[in-house]
Amino acid sequence: MKARVKPNHSLKSNTNLYYDPWKIIQKNLPSEEAKIYFSESIFSTTNGLIGSRGTFEETFSSFKHLGNYLGGVWYPMPTRVGWWKNGYPLYFGKMINALDFLDTEIYIDGIQVDLAKLKVLSFWRELDMQNGTYLRKATFDINGKTIDYQVLRFYSVVQTERVLTRFRFQVPQNTKVEFITKIKTDVTNYDASEQENFWDLIDTKKIDTNLYLVHTQTKTNPFGVKQFNVFSSFKLFNSNQKSVEIKYEQNKTGFQAGSIWTSKKDQEILELDKHVFIKSDFNIAKEDAKHFIVEKSKNLQTSDFDLQLKLQKNEWEKRWSQSDIIIEKNVAIQQGVRYCIYQLLSTYSGVDPLLNIGPKGFSGEKYGGATYWDTEAFCLPFYLATCDQEVAKNLVKYRYLQLHQAIENAKQLGLNGALYPMVTFDGVECHNEWEITFEEIHRNAAIVYGIYNYVRWTKDEKYLKDFGIPVILEVAKFWVDRTHYSQNKQVYMIHGVTGPNEYDNNVNNNWYTNYMARWCIEYALECISQYKLTKLERYSLTKTEIQHWKEVVAKMYLPYDKKHDIFVQFDTFLDKNFVSKDLIPENEKPLNKHWSWDKILRSCYIKQADVLQAMYFFPEKFSDHEVNQNYSFYEPYTVHESSLSPCIHMILASRLKKPAKTLLETMLRTCRLDLDNYNDDTDDGLHITSMAGAWLAVVEGLLGMRFNKKQTLEFAPQIPKELGKITAKIKFLNQWKTIVAQSDELTIVLSKSKNSRIN
Amino acid sequence: MKARVKPNHSLKSNTNLYYDPWKIIQKNLPSEEAKIYFSESIFSTTNGLIGSRGTFEETFSSFKHLGNYLGGVWYPMPTRVGWWKNGYPLYFGKMINALDFLDTEIYIDGIQVDLAKLKVLSFWRELDMQNGTYLRKATFDINGKTIDYQVLRFYSVVQTERVLTRFRFQVPQNTKVEFITKIKTDVTNYDASEQENFWDLIDTKKIDTNLYLVHTQTKTNPFGVKQFNVFSSFKLFNSNQKSVEIKYEQNKTGFQAGSIWTSKKDQEILELDKHVFIKSDFNIAKEDAKHFIVEKSKNLQTSDFDLQLKLQKNEWEKRWSQSDIIIEKNVAIQQGVRYCIYQLLSTYSGVDPLLNIGPKGFSGEKYGGATYWDTEAFCLPFYLATCDQEVAKNLVKYRYLQLHQAIENAKQLGLNGALYPMVTFDGVECHNEWEITFEEIHRNAAIVYGIYNYVRWTKDEKYLKDFGIPVILEVAKFWVDRTHYSQNKQVYMIHGVTGPNEYDNNVNNNWYTNYMARWCIEYALECISQYKLTKLERYSLTKTEIQHWKEVVAKMYLPYDKKHDIFVQFDTFLDKNFVSKDLIPENEKPLNKHWSWDKILRSCYIKQADVLQAMYFFPEKFSDHEVNQNYSFYEPYTVHESSLSPCIHMILASRLKKPAKTLLETMLRTCRLDLDNYNDDTDDGLHITSMAGAWLAVVEGLLGMRFNKKQTLEFAPQIPKELGKITAKIKFLNQWKTIVAQSDELTIVLSKSKNSRIN
Repeated sequence: MKARVKPNHSLKSNTNLYYDPWKIIQKNLPSEEAKIYFSESIFSTTNGLIGSRGTFEETFSSFKHLGNYLGGVWYPMPTRVGWWKNGYPLYFGKMINALDFLDTEIYIDGIQVDLAKLKVLSFWRELDMQNGTYLRKATFDINGKTIDYQVLRFYSVVQTERVLTRFRFQVPQNTKVEFITKIKTDVTNYDASEQENFWDLIDTKKIDTNLYLVHTQTKTNPFGVKQFNVFSSFKLFNSNQKSVEIKYEQNKTGFQAGSIWTSKKDQEILELDKHVFIKSDFNIAKEDAKHFIVEKSKNLQTSDFDLQLKLQKNEWEKRWSQSDIIIEKNVAIQQGVRYCIYQLLSTYSGVDPLLNIGPKGFSGEKYGGATYWDTEAFCLPFYLATCDQEVAKNLVKYRYLQLHQAIENAKQLGLNGALYPMVTFDGVECHNEWEITFEEIHRNAAIVYGIYNYVRWTKDEKYLKDFGIPVILEVAKFWVDRTHYSQNKQVYMIHGVTGPNEYDNNVNNNWYTNYMARWCIEYALECISQYKLTKLERYSLTKTEIQHWKEVVAKMYLPYDKKHDIFVQFDTFLDKNFVSKDLIPENEKPLNKHWSWDKILRSCYIKQADVLQAMYFFPEKFSDHEVNQNYSFYEPYTVHESSLSPCIHMILASRLKKPAKTLLETMLRTCRLDLDNYNDDTDDGLHITSMAGAWLAVVEGLLGMRFNKKQTLEFAPQIPKELGKITAKIKFLNQWKTIVAQSDELTIVLSKSKNSRIN
Repeated sequence: MKARVKPNHSLKSNTNLYYDPWKIIQKNLPSEEAKIYFSESIFSTTNGLIGSRGTFEETFSSFKHLGNYLGGVWYPMPTRVGWWKNGYPLYFGKMINALDFLDTEIYIDGIQVDLAKLKVLSFWRELDMQNGTYLRKATFDINGKTIDYQVLRFYSVVQTERVLTRFRFQVPQNTKVEFITKIKTDVTNYDASEQENFWDLIDTKKIDTNLYLVHTQTKTNPFGVKQFNVFSSFKLFNSNQKSVEIKYEQNKTGFQAGSIWTSKKDQEILELDKHVFIKSDFNIAKEDAKHFIVEKSKNLQTSDFDLQLKLQKNEWEKRWSQSDIIIEKNVAIQQGVRYCIYQLLSTYSGVDPLLNIGPKGFSGEKYGGATYWDTEAFCLPFYLATCDQEVAKNLVKYRYLQLHQAIENAKQLGLNGALYPMVTFDGVECHNEWEITFEEIHRNAAIVYGIYNYVRWTKDEKYLKDFGIPVILEVAKFWVDRTHYSQNKQVYMIHGVTGPNEYDNNVNNNWYTNYMARWCIEYALECISQYKLTKLERYSLTKTEIQHWKEVVAKMYLPYDKKHDIFVQFDTFLDKNFVSKDLIPENEKPLNKHWSWDKILRSCYIKQADVLQAMYFFPEKFSDHEVNQNYSFYEPYTVHESSLSPCIHMILASRLKKPAKTLLETMLRTCRLDLDNYNDDTDDGLHITSMAGAWLAVVEGLLGMRFNKKQTLEFAPQIPKELGKITAKIKFLNQWKTIVAQSDELTIVLSKSKNSRIN
C-alpha cells in the first residue's frame, strides 16, 4: 500500500493547508476568528458515535467553537415564533454539545499553557487519514524555556465508545508540569440564541479506586421527546514516568484527574494517556449503558493506548482496501477525494439503523445534526459500492423504521400515505419553516429512490418485499393525494412545492417534483404487478384507487417549453429576468451571504441541480440531446451554492463530454469544497453529505459509471489527461471490481477478495 | 339624545350577551375557559393610552388572561429560529403587559372574594358606551351572609394618564371587609413561549404622606430598541365612611394600599375609590414623565371621582354627537355598530402621531399590538368623517415620521425607495416571516392611498406638499425597482408577493399588487406634474428615471382572463381545483383553525378581498359590469376569515344591488364580529381595526357613499326595509352633513355645528 503521489509540501492551498495525498496538514497556528473555526471544522474527527471539532484540549483563550457530539443524542427547541399555522412542527431539533470530555488545563512552571497567549515557536497539526489519527505539535517558549508539546487523539473505530488522547511534553531540566484533565458537563451550544445548558448532572460516582462514573441526562422537554442518559468515565495513565502520581477528584461539573511532575534531566519526556469512555442510551436501556461503561473502563492497562492505536490503524487499513480511489497525477484532487472518503467512513459505519448521516456529521451544529434527503439522494451509492451490504441496508432501513411517523406527518397535513420529514432525528419532522417542511416534498421521492437503488445494487428482494414495499406504497398514496386535477389545463398538477433549488419557494408544478412523483407512483404500480400484491386491502388500497393512480401517471403535468426545448423548472419560471451568473459581481458571491432572501427568490439563479437532478437519477431515461438542452439552459444560471450541486453537474458534464477544464474545475470544487472553503462557510462545519458527491464525481463522472436501460452498470470514462490514471474499487451485486481508467480507456479487474488493496 | 331603539333584553345573542342599543350586557358569570377569555375581550376598555381587558380586579382563581397595556410601550423578542436569511428582521415586536394596576384582594369575614369559588347569587356587567364606563355587579353568599358587590371602572378620556375604579360593598350588620389594592410589576404575557417578566422595578418611593411613585423600566434588549420608563402611582379614598383608615405599604413588586372596615348596621355601604396614574416616556423625556405623574397625583380630593366621571360622560356625549349612527329598526345592528364606533374612538383619539391603531387595540396581545396596513386601508375614512381633522392627520403623519426607517427597510432588501413595514411600532419591521415581511408589499400602496384619501377629504395641500410627497415619491421608487421586465412576456411584472389574500403566499403578478403599484407610480407622476417638482434632484430623481416610471406604468402586467372575463388574482390561480365554499364541511370552518397551512395555501379559498379590494378603493375606475364579473367569480371562494373581508364585500354587494338578505347578513357579520364571535377567535382580543369596517359597511355600503369620477362624494342608499331609517353624520371638506336614508331614499342636511346631536 503506497501513495501514488509524492507529498509536495511546497504546494499550499489557499486556506493555509498543505497538499499531501494522505494527510491534511496545517503548519501555522491560525489567529483570526474565521480561520480558527475553519480549522476546527477541517480537523473534526469522529467514529460515527462520538465526534468532535478540532478544538484544542488545553485552554485556548482566543475563539473556540466547542463541539463534542454523540450520535443519536439531541434536544427539541420550541419553534413558536411568528403567526402559528396548523400542521407546524412543535419543535426544531438540535444536535447538542455533549459533555466536554477533552477539557484540560496545563501549567508549566506555574504558567498556563494557552497557545493564544504564549510565544509559539512552531506549530503543526495533521489529520492522518490513512491511520485515523489526529496529531498536534507545538513548540513554545515559557520564561526562556523551550517546550515541545504534542497531542495525539483518535476516536476508536473498533470500540466506538472510546476516545483516546496522548499528551506528550519534552522539557528542559527542572521544569514543572501540572496537568488537569476533565469531564465537564456544563456546556452550551455555539448558537447565540441557545445559550443554555442542555444537561443535568445526575451524579458523579466513584466506582473503583481510579474510576468515576458521570451520569448526565438531557434536560426535560415539553414534547415527549426522549430524555437521553449518558454515562461517561475516563482514566489517565502515565506511560513513561513511573514516578508520576495521578489524582482523581470529583467536582461540581463532573470530575477531573491531575498530576504534577518535574523533569530531572534536560529534554526529558512526559507522556499522559487519557482514555475516555462514553455511551448514551439512545438505542439501549439506561442500565445497560451504565453497565457497559463501568465494565469497559475497569481493568485498563497502561499499555492499552498502543494496543488501541494499532487496532485503529488496522481497521483503517481494511477500510481503505475497500474504498480508496487513486488519482495518479493530481495531489490536490487526490487529497480532496481521500478527505471526503475518510470523513464519510468516519461519520457513518452502519452499526445502527437508528443512526444516519447529518449534513455536517459531527463537525458542527448547523442543520441541527439531523437527517435530510442527502442520505438517499447523494450518499447511498458510496456506501453501496464500498462497504459491506449491511451498511447501506441500515441506511435504507432507517426510513422503514420511521414509516409510522411519516404516515402521521402526512395526516397532520390532511393527506393520505406517508410524508417523510425534511429534517429528523427519530422520524418526526423537526424543522419549522413551511416552505421547507410542507413544501420541499420531493424528499419523499428520494426515500423511494434509495430503496430502488439499494435493490438494484444488491438484488435484495427480501428487503424489498419486507421493508421496501410498505414504504413505496405509502409514498405513492401521498403523491396521488397531493396532486389535484386542474379543470383549466386538464392535467394533474402539484401546487405549492419547493424543488431541490431552494432559491425558489412555493412554486407550482416543479418539473423535478412532478417527474419524481410520477416515477414513484409508477414504481409502486410495478411492485404491485411484479410481486402480485393481490391482497391490496393489506395495504389499505382498492382497485379503484389503483385505477386512479394510473390515471394520475398518464395525465401528470410536466412543464415543457417548445421555444427553448427544455423542461421548465416550474410554472412561470421563464417569466423571470434572465442574466447570466457571470454578470454577478464577485463581491456579491455567494448570493446567500450578500443578497436578501427576497432578491434571491425573485432572481433567476438556481441554488443546485433541479431539472438536472432527475437526469442524474435516471440517466437511462433521457437522451443526450435532452440532457444537453437542459444542461445548457440551466447551468449558466446555477450558482452551486448548495454543496450538493457541483457533483451532479460534473457527472452530466462528463456525459456530455464537456471540456477537461470544466471537469477539472468542478472536480476540484466538489472534492475540496471544505479544504478550500469554496462557499466560505466551512467555519460552522464540514459538508459531510456532499462529500459523497466527490466520490460520485470520480466514479459516476470521470469514470462514467451509470446504469443503462438494461439496468446494468456501464463505465464511459472521460478523464482529463492532467489526472493521469484513476483507480477505484466498486462492489456491484456482491462482486468486487477494480476499475482502472485513463482518458477514455478502461480496464476492469474482478477481485476475489474485498480486502485486496488497489495500487 | 334618545335611543331610537328600545332596549329588548329578551333578545340574547348566541354569546350570552344581551341586545341593547347603548350597552353591552352580560348577566351570567362565565365559567368555561373560552367564554371567560371572550368576555374579557368584549369588556375591554381603553382611553388610547392605557387599556385593559375586562379582567376582574379581585382574585379570580379560574382562567384569566391578564391584559393591561400602555400605548407605545413594547418589547423586541429575538426571532432567530430556523435557517437564517439576509434581510430578516432581528426581532418580533410585542406589546407587553404593563404593570398590573388593577390587582386587588378582598376578604369578607376573613374569606377571600373569588367569584370562581364563592356561591354567586347574581352577576351583571355592562359596558356603558354612551358614558364610557364599565360596571360590574355581583351578589354572593359568604357564610350565609348576602353581599352586594359593585365595581365601576373607567379610563379617563379627558386625562389620559388616569384609570379610576370605584368599589362598592353593601353588607349585613357586623361584616368585616378587608381590602388591599396594588400596583404590581411582576407580570408576564399570556403567550406560552414568553413566560418572562418584561419589567425591572427601578424603585418605589414615598413622595408624600399618601403618595408612592413606582418607577419601572422594560428589560434591556440587544437590538438598541428604547428601554421604556414607566412611572405610576395611585391613591385610595373612602368616599362615604369617614372612619375608614387607608394604609399604604411598599412591597417587593410595587406598593399597596389597604383598609379594614366592619359594618355597624345592616345593608351598610362602603365605597372605595382607586385613582391610578400612569405614564411612560415613549414620547417625552423620562424626567418629564416622572414629574407629570407626581404633580398629577398630588392634592387629589375625595370628590374627584365624581368630577372625573362627569367629565368622562361629557366628553363621550361630545364624541357621540359627531360620530353616532342610528339604525331605526334593528337593535342587534344598532348595538354592533355603536360597539365598533365606541371601541375605535376609545383606541385612537389622535393625540399623538407616534401612536397608531393595533389590530387588537388594547384588548389582547395577538398581532403584537403593532401597526398594520389596516390603518390606512380600513380605519382612516371613519376618523376623516367623524373626528377633528387633526386626528386623521396624525394617523397619516405617523408614516411620514417613519419614512427614514422605511427607506432603510427597502435598502436591506437591496431595493430603492421606501418599503413600509408590515408590522411596526417605531417604523422598523418587526415581523419575522419572509412571505409577509418581504412579500406582502401591497401595504406600501395603502400608505400612499391613505395620503391620497386624507388629501381628497380635506384638501390639505400643505400636508401633501410638506409630508405627503416625500412618502409618495419614495414609495414609487420602490415599486419601480421591485418590478422586472419579462423578456418572455414583454411586460413589467412583480414576482414574489403575497396579496391581501394571505391564503396564497409568494405568488407572481398578484393583480391587486400590480394594479396598486401602477397607481402609486401614476399618482407620484401626477404630483410631480401638478406641483411642478422641477428640482427632481431634491428627491434624488432624474428625468431618465421619470421616463422609466412612465414606461413601467404603460407596460405593467395586469393578468386578465378572457374566458371568465375577470382580472386574475395572480399567475396560475385559475389552475387550482375550484370547489364552492358551500361544500366545505361545517366542522372544518374556519379553515385556519382546522386545515393545515399546506392545504389552505393550495386550496382555491380566499381569505379576504383581493382583486375586489382595488374595486373598493377606486369605485370610480371600474364599471358595474367589471365589479359584478369579479364579485361573482371570487366571492363564492372567499371564506372571509379575515375580519377585514365582509365589509368590503358588503360595500360592493350594495353597489351591485344584491338582495337585502345578503346585505343584512354581511352587515351583522361585520358589526357583530366580536359580539357574536363569528370567527371563534375573540377570546384573544377584539378586532379593533376591522371595526372600522362596520362603519364603512353602513356608510359606504347601506348609504352608498362613494367618490365619483369628479372626486365628489355621492350617496346611493341601498337599505333593506328591515332596518328602517338610518341616520349618520359625515364631515367632508370641513362641512358637517347629516345623512338620513331609508330604502333608496336620501336626505342630506348640512349642519352648522359639529356638535349637534343627530336624532
